Amino acid sequence: MYRGLDLAPPLFEVGPKAYLYGAGALELARAADRLSLEYDVRIVFTPQYVDIPLLAQETERLLIFAQHMDPIPVGPGAGSVLPESLVAAGAHGVMLNHSEKPIGLSHIRRAIERADEVGLATIVCADTPQEAAAVAQLAPNIILAEPPELIGSGGESVAGTDFVGLSKRMIKAVNPDIVLFSAAGIRSGPDVAQTIRLGAEMTGSTSGIIKADDPIAMLEEMIVALRQAWDETHPT
Amino acid sequence: MYRGLDLAPPLFEVGPKAYLYGAGALELARAADRLSLEYDVRIVFTPQYVDIPLLAQETERLLIFAQHMDPIPVGPGAGSVLPESLVAAGAHGVMLNHSEKPIGLSHIRRAIERADEVGLATIVCADTPQEAAAVAQLAPNIILAEPPELIGSGGESVAGTDFVGLSKRMIKAVNPDIVLFSAAGIRSGPDVAQTIRLGAEMTGSTSGIIKADDPIAMLEEMIVALRQAWDETHPT
Amino acid sequence: MYRGLDLAPPLFEVGPKAYLYGAGALELARAADRLSLEYDVRIVFTPQYVDIPLLAQETERLLIFAQHMDPIPVGPGAGSVLPESLVAAGAHGVMLNHSEKPIGLSHIRRAIERADEVGLATIVCADTPQEAAAVAQLAPNIILAEPPELIGSGGESVAGTDFVGLSKRMIKAVNPDIVLFSAAGIRSGPDVAQTIRLGAEMTGSTSGIIKADDPIAMLEEMIVALRQAWDETHPT
Amino acid sequence: MYRGLDLAPPLFEVGPKAYLYGAGALELARAADRLSLEYDVRIVFTPQYVDIPLLAQETERLLIFAQHMDPIPVGPGAGSVLPESLVAAGAHGVMLNHSEKPIGLSHIRRAIERADEVGLATIVCADTPQEAAAVAQLAPNIILAEPPELIGSGGESVAGTDFVGLSKRMIKAVNPDIVLFSAAGIRSGPDVAQTIRLGAEMTGSTSGIIKADDPIAMLEEMIVALRQAWDETHPT
Repeated sequence: MYRGLDLAPPLFEVGPKAYLYGAGALELARAADRLSLEYDVRIVFTPQYVDIPLLAQETERLLIFAQHMDPIPVGPGAGSVLPESLVAAGAHGVMLNHSEKPIGLSHIRRAIERADEVGLATIVCADTPQEAAAVAQLAPNIILAEPPELIGSGGESVAGTDFVGLSKRMIKAVNPDIVLFSAAGIRSGPDVAQTIRLGAEMTGSTSGIIKADDPIAMLEEMIVALRQAWDETHPT
Repeated sequence: MYRGLDLAPPLFEVGPKAYLYGAGALELARAADRLSLEYDVRIVFTPQYVDIPLLAQETERLLIFAQHMDPIPVGPGAGSVLPESLVAAGAHGVMLNHSEKPIGLSHIRRAIERADEVGLATIVCADTPQEAAAVAQLAPNIILAEPPELIGSGGESVAGTDFVGLSKRMIKAVNPDIVLFSAAGIRSGPDVAQTIRLGAEMTGSTSGIIKADDPIAMLEEMIVALRQAWDETHPT
Repeated sequence: MYRGLDLAPPLFEVGPKAYLYGAGALELARAADRLSLEYDVRIVFTPQYVDIPLLAQETERLLIFAQHMDPIPVGPGAGSVLPESLVAAGAHGVMLNHSEKPIGLSHIRRAIERADEVGLATIVCADTPQEAAAVAQLAPNIILAEPPELIGSGGESVAGTDFVGLSKRMIKAVNPDIVLFSAAGIRSGPDVAQTIRLGAEMTGSTSGIIKADDPIAMLEEMIVALRQAWDETHPT
Repeated sequence: MYRGLDLAPPLFEVGPKAYLYGAGALELARAADRLSLEYDVRIVFTPQYVDIPLLAQETERLLIFAQHMDPIPVGPGAGSVLPESLVAAGAHGVMLNHSEKPIGLSHIRRAIERADEVGLATIVCADTPQEAAAVAQLAPNIILAEPPELIGSGGESVAGTDFVGLSKRMIKAVNPDIVLFSAAGIRSGPDVAQTIRLGAEMTGSTSGIIKADDPIAMLEEMIVALRQAWDETHPT
């Protein structure tokens, strides 16, 4: 677990996947950066690899994470994503094992070790609470527990009480420092609020934002909801 | 086969793989760009994904190719390399099926189709003359035929006469417009010259340059040798 | 191309995939064996790996092909399918690169070489006529050209005229000894007949047989149609 | 965790990988079966897929495990290993995630669930104590913790004290019912004894047996050593 980055909840991820790139990604990233400052919510943005340098340069408080990384050392490895190249490009972290890019258990473990070594925070995806507990043994910063059948779903409710609560209990039992990220099916501010009330410390959206009539307005709706739900459930 | 890029031989590839990134990649790319202009040799440079935008911006005549690409459309696909993102970042082309990043036959075919569609030239790797002929049926711009056991080898001779000549005959019989790229084990100017004399239209090096005492001097030695061997074997 | 097995058309494949195994696979294999003798049609049956020995032993004229194989030599390779193990178990051949089990170009080439070496015939799958021509360069015995979007489809028509005809011309231009196998969406005797009339030398079915009310009766309907369509289009 | 099979330690695995098949595998399996009865040690034998039915039929007490399995349901899945087909063939269990056949975290989890469902015991491989703890969260019957750099090594000592001890503590802390299997570099009876004294409940060998001058004599030496070391360290 990389300790060099402040990842205090509440956190939010904007995940462009392969929907946005170039100018479109930059526009959304700038809006996210502004909202991050305005509402004091740390926002992770996971662009296409080639967009990392520009987004890192053009934003102030946004956390730029790569969508994947290979656990190789400097050397051969044509076609791979070298950890050091991400750091040099300004990335703050990396997402691993998304259900659209599954990797082996050993790949996950070695990539977390490499991330710790070069200075990148890690988000590792898990399909079930059991997988989340398994991943917790490998000490990433954040675990995204989401049922793959809900990813990209429209109109489905967010992950249910049992899924979020059980994931949280199982992760924290292994390592209480790991942040629980729960998403899948987040399409509005109320979806965000519900997920936080269920116990999640981070949530996020891809198609819920990108397919909205006004993506930036929807992002703001979600960030406002996140801030409010967090403050309600975590009174000082 | 993308027709929008001038790829007239002789051509040379500098392949940083995962050896170079950031400032180190930029320095070598600038030198390659200068040599490309000075010796009128088109040079393909294949950096880490995140280095594509800066190198495209900071060079004039260098051809920037990604090391890999996924044949997906705009949409989901976390962890993938979207073709449109490469174009927007300034890439001129993409390498596919390197022996360090093997992909399925259908992946190769669809990636060439996507490259043609978005405007990227393609280099596809093949292990044997037979594989080169197979790839030729899919109409990439360039085929890199190299025996995997020689990749990264030190002190080994370049691909022998039969390998280069047979690859060339088999590729050209399928599609004479495809450029034959032959490499593996290129460690000096004389290695470059020999490969060209054997019939290759493009050659290149990774470790032969990067592990040289003076990489830029070695690159210049290779480019000089390429220009001379080409002019000798292709008198006007 | 392995020459030790008589693969004169017309040919038919029964593909149990992961639908049938054990006693169910044996029952269908016995019926196929009887029909093969009765109608003088060579039938390829592709069971789960563990069912190969029993089916090879309990049938007389059926051709037993594995669904996949790894191109490794005798040695390490936990979890792989060793070519020699298939021969020892009585297999006659192997299918490679099914769209449900895609493999790299080099894997295809090396698996065909290993098959030739140990004495196994090869069926290699291709998604398009171009891929079929690419595969033809690697000299398998049979190429299964089928559009993946039709595999397992119900009610869809068989591969259209252009697809079958173009695949055949492109394969035969590379190597006239390769058998054209065309399938996908075959659900009845008339589908079989149409595919043969379009020029295919082999066809087959999985779900069209297995999901039929009476699979063995459906298989017989298909074999009868194959025999008749073949004799009509190939008068002696 | 499948509870239908008695897996009380001490246990031993003979892993033919892709070294042995057919008659050679059967001969070694028969010897292992005899030694299992003679020394009251349960022996797991992991043959090539096609050899499972014959070995299951020709042995009495040997535990036959497949080398890999896909977590698919009955249905499509050409080239895959269907769980139900293994059970029908007489297999008692399955090995998963060997370093020569790495699979994704979700694949491991779903394969264990499918194994529990159809009635197969599971051995899951892990490269480090941390990975072993991760796997333990998914509740297989047995975890094989071995450093990949020692697999197939000759002359190397067995996994050191820290590796075995730490793996055991980390696995048992998650689930005390899981059996710790430690191997890699086992080449003699003394290697077996040392591994058991370090705390392993199961050990095994591939090349240590197969490359021995007399494989069956070497297997007996190892089983004798296992029995003695176990009895010494577990006095009744």
